[in-house]
Amino acid sequence: MRTISMHWVWIALLTGFLLSATASNGSSSELASDGPTKTLIQRASLIITMDPALGTGPLGSLADVDLLMEKDTILAIGKGLIAPDATVLNANGKILLPGFVDVHNHLYQSVFRGGCAHDDVLGWLQKCNLPIRLALNETDIYAAVRLSTLDLITTGVTTVVDWAHMFPQNLAKANIRALEESGLRFVFAYSQPKEGLDTLRAFKAELIDPNPLAGFQLTGGTRKKSAEHLADMVNLAHQLHVKVNVHLLEHIDQRQEDPVGVLARSGALALGPNLLLNHAIHLTDEDITLLAKSGAHIAHAPLSNMRLASGIIRLPELHKHGIKVGLGLDGGTNDTSDVFANMRTAVGLQRATTLHAGTFPTVSEVLRMATLGGAEVLGLEHQIGSLAPGKKADVIILDPSAINFAPQWDWLSQIVFNGQPANVEYVFVNGRLLKEKGRLIGVAEKDVIAAAEQAADRIRRSLDPGRKPGKE
Amino acid sequence: MRTISMHWVWIALLTGFLLSATASNGSSSELASDGPTKTLIQRASLIITMDPALGTGPLGSLADVDLLMEKDTILAIGKGLIAPDATVLNANGKILLPGFVDVHNHLYQSVFRGGCAHDDVLGWLQKCNLPIRLALNETDIYAAVRLSTLDLITTGVTTVVDWAHMFPQNLAKANIRALEESGLRFVFAYSQPKEGLDTLRAFKAELIDPNPLAGFQLTGGTRKKSAEHLADMVNLAHQLHVKVNVHLLEHIDQRQEDPVGVLARSGALALGPNLLLNHAIHLTDEDITLLAKSGAHIAHAPLSNMRLASGIIRLPELHKHGIKVGLGLDGGTNDTSDVFANMRTAVGLQRATTLHAGTFPTVSEVLRMATLGGAEVLGLEHQIGSLAPGKKADVIILDPSAINFAPQWDWLSQIVFNGQPANVEYVFVNGRLLKEKGRLIGVAEKDVIAAAEQAADRIRRSLDPGRKPGKE
Repeated sequence: MRTISMHWVWIALLTGFLLSATASNGSSSELASDGPTKTLIQRASLIITMDPALGTGPLGSLADVDLLMEKDTILAIGKGLIAPDATVLNANGKILLPGFVDVHNHLYQSVFRGGCAHDDVLGWLQKCNLPIRLALNETDIYAAVRLSTLDLITTGVTTVVDWAHMFPQNLAKANIRALEESGLRFVFAYSQPKEGLDTLRAFKAELIDPNPLAGFQLTGGTRKKSAEHLADMVNLAHQLHVKVNVHLLEHIDQRQEDPVGVLARSGALALGPNLLLNHAIHLTDEDITLLAKSGAHIAHAPLSNMRLASGIIRLPELHKHGIKVGLGLDGGTNDTSDVFANMRTAVGLQRATTLHAGTFPTVSEVLRMATLGGAEVLGLEHQIGSLAPGKKADVIILDPSAINFAPQWDWLSQIVFNGQPANVEYVFVNGRLLKEKGRLIGVAEKDVIAAAEQAADRIRRSLDPGRKPGKE
Repeated sequence: MRTISMHWVWIALLTGFLLSATASNGSSSELASDGPTKTLIQRASLIITMDPALGTGPLGSLADVDLLMEKDTILAIGKGLIAPDATVLNANGKILLPGFVDVHNHLYQSVFRGGCAHDDVLGWLQKCNLPIRLALNETDIYAAVRLSTLDLITTGVTTVVDWAHMFPQNLAKANIRALEESGLRFVFAYSQPKEGLDTLRAFKAELIDPNPLAGFQLTGGTRKKSAEHLADMVNLAHQLHVKVNVHLLEHIDQRQEDPVGVLARSGALALGPNLLLNHAIHLTDEDITLLAKSGAHIAHAPLSNMRLASGIIRLPELHKHGIKVGLGLDGGTNDTSDVFANMRTAVGLQRATTLHAGTFPTVSEVLRMATLGGAEVLGLEHQIGSLAPGKKADVIILDPSAINFAPQWDWLSQIVFNGQPANVEYVFVNGRLLKEKGRLIGVAEKDVIAAAEQAADRIRRSLDPGRKPGKE
């Protein structure tokens, strides 16, 4: 899709002329046209493009360059770009990155943050997640998802996969409404019981397909009793050209269910890159070989895996086998949305267990994993995950001139080891500005928080009628 | 020292009358006296006192209560406190905690944040820490420490141990000057070569003793070649009634130096609780038994241990043996000061490796470790670490009504799993307000950052004369 070459980048760099987008989506490449829809981000001290062909190092870094976007698309990256009709944003001293891609989350779970804090994933599922999920109404789920989306934007996420179980349709619709209102790019992972296959087709056609920011995946289970439903989802996935998205071996006891066997027997492994596996912690060598051969992708959620005592993923082995892995925040089980902490934990867990600082992932590798790697895991790498002409304008700007981040010594490493959500100064999704000068824009934060508080209170009272509102 | 009993707390709670401080430091208990030095923090939704005698649960929690402080001291905690002459701060909806105690840091290291990001602790020491330390001048160290102190205050640290090697005295003085200007309570851990014992005594008498916020410890090494100096420091520690503070088994290869043997032969183990051991990761069962018998304390820096591929401390075993452990941020090796991330990493590393969510430390245990536990490790538990009448007024206020923290479900757990430095709204150290409404006060942040940038630039140019300022 992207046909730009290094040759043209150098021409732009050398001449200061504008580089035209050649994206197949047909976004305007008429650079001199009038219109208030262009934004010129000027003199960024560092742009991490994630494309080694566009800059230096494995992440294609460029210093002191401009980025021009029009409507939803990046038009050009280069020195001294000229666009008289563009809104100009001075990025001198700042760092530009592609927005973070969160490949695994459950956005409704913010309604019980901190819940079942002394349970592992199985206890947490049984004591908190299941009863609360069953108690949710439309208002609750809308409130919780709305809150989660704001948390994601704050930390610089621009694309999120929201794994939404098999919610009744009214809840799923409320969930999607909150996602749509957020302005985030999202993939809604969802399914319905067997009798609902036509309903699912209609659901996708009605609620997902009309929205250029929305994608769809089908959820399933990997327990033996889920095999039949999973096989149906695999068939439907082939028909709809979407991925199947399942949890795999998050808890060691789940090995008893032979989940990799369930994946094989249901036909899911034959989906290849259209199979997305969440967690995939307790894999044997044989499992890894089998998954590598299948071409399936993995979502890794390190903060969640620590919180829920799930274990430590075999990331270096997965990498050696060429399995693509993205990073997920995993909603309420990780409790907070801090992509920087998630990246440094992905690095740190491997380092602390292997005692080798060169272990996969390195700083560059984890930054890629959180952006372009995540896009690849979702099959969206032609649209997002890097900053290049023709790509969607999912761009974040970090301010490194902050108490927790300065001084400049090794900015790539500082993003991973020093970054905090508060350092994310600007967030653009599909060209639309969602965070500006460190503040969420176009949102009444207090109202969103108040609605989430009401939802949490209502749910707790419905589960424990004697409880006083607002109390521990 | 603290003679307050549960009986009196209940009287205060029931009658609304004020509870007098009975601290031996003689702070005023004349409640009706005029003066602008009292602060009444009113109607806090939750006060986590850390004293089970004062409230419910292992952390002594109280709901909807007031806290009154005068000058440097907490006078009272109770419902409906009356203090007409106090400045009133409405804390309805907020959480009060004792300030965090950071038992291990190296504040000058912020000058090379992100440095040697692909090295383990030995590589980092050799390639970054040593050459940079030798290149530092007074201006650099002042700038770096100043920046670090602001970062600490931002995240709610009120007491820090700054392990300052054996810097030349002019650098040590610049370091202390920055600590003093910060308003933080601090312990300066420092030593000089053998010929400087009298100098060290004079240094302490001149620069530490006059400052009520400052404490002193003696640094040493645990390599065989450090044994003689360490023995001198142990003797001096006995004379000065201070602790000896050393690094122990941060890297597994350091076992070759028989550091526990060095501690024994130098007399350090006989210091008992006056021996503070940093990291103490690669301990055998025999080491743990020996250290437990000695009564030595340990500083655990989980984020640093991940970053530097150091390993995972045997925290549950240390706890079983009754060894007191506090949490440290460990400066530049952890890169950023986020006490919340440090707490959840201390919990999460044990959970991820044991696959048990009930493993030490739990949420309550890690919150205690970050506050009163840290104070105990420093021997300061009679002054700080909990919120109780007579204790020093080191108080932080969290705002849980934030995008990343709300809604209220289980606030104790949310502090650990959801908290971010930005949620720290107020920080009082010794009664002095250092952060207010989320902003550092009385500080020109931009100037501090600019000075740190200059220092980093100067050092890099001195190490690499061909380098252009400000470049990666």
